[in-house]
Amino acid sequence: MAGADNPRLREIAEAFVRHMHAFAREVKLSEHEYDIGIDFLNRIGQATHDAHNEGILFADAIGFSTLVCLMNNGNGGPTETAAALLGPFWRANSPVTESGASIVRSPTPGPDLFATCQVVDTSGAPVAGVTVDVWQASPIGLYENQDETQADMNLRGRFTTDAEGRFAFRSVKPAGYPVPTDGPVGEMLRAQHRHPYRPAHVHFLGYKPGYKTLITQVFVDDDEHLESDAVFGVTRALIGDYRRHDGGTPPAPGVAAPWYTLSYRFVMQRGESILPKPPIK
Amino acid sequence: MAGADNPRLREIAEAFVRHMHAFAREVKLSEHEYDIGIDFLNRIGQATHDAHNEGILFADAIGFSTLVCLMNNGNGGPTETAAALLGPFWRANSPVTESGASIVRSPTPGPDLFATCQVVDTSGAPVAGVTVDVWQASPIGLYENQDETQADMNLRGRFTTDAEGRFAFRSVKPAGYPVPTDGPVGEMLRAQHRHPYRPAHVHFLGYKPGYKTLITQVFVDDDEHLESDAVFGVTRALIGDYRRHDGGTPPAPGVAAPWYTLSYRFVMQRGESILPKPPIK
Repeated sequence: MAGADNPRLREIAEAFVRHMHAFAREVKLSEHEYDIGIDFLNRIGQATHDAHNEGILFADAIGFSTLVCLMNNGNGGPTETAAALLGPFWRANSPVTESGASIVRSPTPGPDLFATCQVVDTSGAPVAGVTVDVWQASPIGLYENQDETQADMNLRGRFTTDAEGRFAFRSVKPAGYPVPTDGPVGEMLRAQHRHPYRPAHVHFLGYKPGYKTLITQVFVDDDEHLESDAVFGVTRALIGDYRRHDGGTPPAPGVAAPWYTLSYRFVMQRGESILPKPPIK
Repeated sequence: MAGADNPRLREIAEAFVRHMHAFAREVKLSEHEYDIGIDFLNRIGQATHDAHNEGILFADAIGFSTLVCLMNNGNGGPTETAAALLGPFWRANSPVTESGASIVRSPTPGPDLFATCQVVDTSGAPVAGVTVDVWQASPIGLYENQDETQADMNLRGRFTTDAEGRFAFRSVKPAGYPVPTDGPVGEMLRAQHRHPYRPAHVHFLGYKPGYKTLITQVFVDDDEHLESDAVFGVTRALIGDYRRHDGGTPPAPGVAAPWYTLSYRFVMQRGESILPKPPIK
């Protein structure tokens, strides 16, 4: 490993090899167990395709993604929104959508959701001109790329914050869902008797040059799996106030009770505006 | 990880996660570096197919395979043949071949090689009835599955030791070769300025119920890469005496000088007769 020109690559590769060897030594890995591990390793990549990323799912399911997320975020002060893992379902080129418009792009039964959001900086001042990607699963727990009954880009949208840092959208209340369990990660979860569920959430990715890209999720507060997310994504700051309304004046014509509202404030800190590689196409 | 029924799985999974997290913490892995790592992980499996196993190659190239090999072999005493990594080129169902016959199955230019081998136990007594798979690269450094000019199963054969534990075969002298560098492992080697070469060798896999399956390689003693094998497979005990003959009576009609002979003694220890999963088909 010592020959790498890039000192950071040298450092990472050296540490990776040292920790992997320490793992093998500690458990006295047998040759048969090595075979099983190599097969598992290969099947991660083989289960990955344009519409699914098993590598991210594996990193998520062993808490590695959340560890990296927590190490790289959260130094901006007590008002800061915590980040959360990106997950395997972000797509590039979400449809540009007017603030206040709906991201429901094909009939999607379920309770209506009206979200009003604001992006502020670490001093509490609004941040205008932030591009915010929003994506979520449907009320039956499927992203559009997993569900042939949904239109392309259903429940995905791209917004821009106004002068007050605000954006709003209409959607449907997301449901929790099992992570895909037909690959090696599913085998691991079953062998460990772990349930595969994620608590319901909406994903947000905020991007503006000069600010650290904000990748996070806002969880539905009545979900039964808040304490046992299969991929360890929940922190207290990320539990949203999804308020149920059983009557009164509906926020738009034709909205039936119950409907939900969500009001959430995101904090972005100054930093590098790096976009992750989209996990799927 | 605590929920696994299988206590060994629990132990291994717990240790793996702990070491992976320790790695990420030690190097303070950034989100961008995480992305690069996930992509590398996925591409290992995606580069694996029926005729190539990138997962094994990766484990080989970081010394992990040899570590596992050394931890699981070599307790049989000073006379024991050291084991070596299986490598990614073993195929099941090698052609059953009479002792003394040739494993050259299509015209393969290069110096002739005549090998005479014996398998003994840790007390030095011959072991009869051992099934021994032999496989090797050609004199231009390609296995038959990498080279359309070679017949299927060229330079592969399956022998059975006789009452004295002996078997013999005719072949051609193997050449060193670069490991496949068109996948992520090749990228890693280039980034680390490591050459991709393996010193020339013949692979052996000895199998008999009641004995620990012997997986090893016997290296050509004049190879320039003996000290720098890209996959860390060489130990002193595995360097063979490939003796060059420039004249005298040839061992078979039509053999031109120079030809080579190899005499080698393998030691098998009592143990479990587990066969690895063939890395390729």
